[in-house]
Amino acid sequence: MEKPSDKVRVKRIPKRGIYDRSEIYEILDKDCVCHVAFVYDGYPVIIPTIYGRSGDELYLHGASTSRMMMALAEGIPVSIAVTKVNGIVLARSLFNSSMNYESVVLFGHAKEVTSQEEKNQGLAVISDQILKGRWEEARQPSAKELKATKLLKVYIQEASAKRREGDPGDEKADYALDIWAGVIPIHRSYGEPIDDSLLKEGISRPHSVKAIVK
Amino acid sequence: MEKPSDKVRVKRIPKRGIYDRSEIYEILDKDCVCHVAFVYDGYPVIIPTIYGRSGDELYLHGASTSRMMMALAEGIPVSIAVTKVNGIVLARSLFNSSMNYESVVLFGHAKEVTSQEEKNQGLAVISDQILKGRWEEARQPSAKELKATKLLKVYIQEASAKRREGDPGDEKADYALDIWAGVIPIHRSYGEPIDDSLLKEGISRPHSVKAIVK
Repeated sequence: MEKPSDKVRVKRIPKRGIYDRSEIYEILDKDCVCHVAFVYDGYPVIIPTIYGRSGDELYLHGASTSRMMMALAEGIPVSIAVTKVNGIVLARSLFNSSMNYESVVLFGHAKEVTSQEEKNQGLAVISDQILKGRWEEARQPSAKELKATKLLKVYIQEASAKRREGDPGDEKADYALDIWAGVIPIHRSYGEPIDDSLLKEGISRPHSVKAIVK
Repeated sequence: MEKPSDKVRVKRIPKRGIYDRSEIYEILDKDCVCHVAFVYDGYPVIIPTIYGRSGDELYLHGASTSRMMMALAEGIPVSIAVTKVNGIVLARSLFNSSMNYESVVLFGHAKEVTSQEEKNQGLAVISDQILKGRWEEARQPSAKELKATKLLKVYIQEASAKRREGDPGDEKADYALDIWAGVIPIHRSYGEPIDDSLLKEGISRPHSVKAIVK
């Protein structure tokens, strides 16, 4: 990862900017859904997709025939964002009201992975990012399925993160107002797993599922 | 909103594509955080931000001095995505494993709102989208604060939504495998509100907060 250029440097409220690689990766590792932006026919296109991080690279995958995958495989520049919203910040003034969040924006180029071995590795990285251990439990991709899947890796060329946390920050004079202020936390959690309606009898939940749902 | 052109038509798994305006708006109205993509200096840029919908328009706001707001105010094309992830879909095969989600991708152009009156209206729309009723409870923007805030509206020119829900869809032969399959729901919820550490004594939670947190 390179030093932050003008492209990623956080201009607004610079104290919220994070350029430390380990902090950026920590935010990336909490999620598995990103938004990918690229230029297509001169227009910006944005698409949500899942990802897995391995070192300084993000793996993305999709159908070999998908427009996005084909466009990205050409090596065009991409911008990827991962955003976790943690709370609604209610200040006394509307102007200072905000959100608590952690977000990463990164820039890079995608490259298609064609080796069968790295393709399996990369898909396992994505699978692990969604649910650790599932890769070993489920049926592995067949040669035909691997062919129908395009795997891309995006080297994280530049990245920056932003984080806001804690109390609202009001104007000095506003603290005297009789207006409630505080934070409403936003949580993301897993619900009770739902068995497939066609599940064979006698099959209990696997380790991967039990590990994240009590 | 225009008819779906080639740009928004869902190509992969067309049965997941939704072009009905009311369904698209229903998804937009469940959230308040979007990702905005635009082309800057020839490169794709993606930024998370909050929004509010009013009719066929999305309002976005930010600091008057922000690069994104200044670039968008020029009327360049934008692509905006809103994505709600509802579950991890664990098929017997990795190939058919997926996510349950609802997402909208739309295209349009931003236009700066300069009239004081519409600016206040638009900011109230955004505020309502985050927390209904808060606008009336908090201190209104001063003239100086309004000046420091840029408000944009994006007419939703084209949009499409995608939704996946329910059980995994496995290959016929795979249903015989001794592998667990099902869905792990993902929930988003509000936590117990946290009073600002500098809250004046005797101020209780307002209606807007009590309405969403039991």
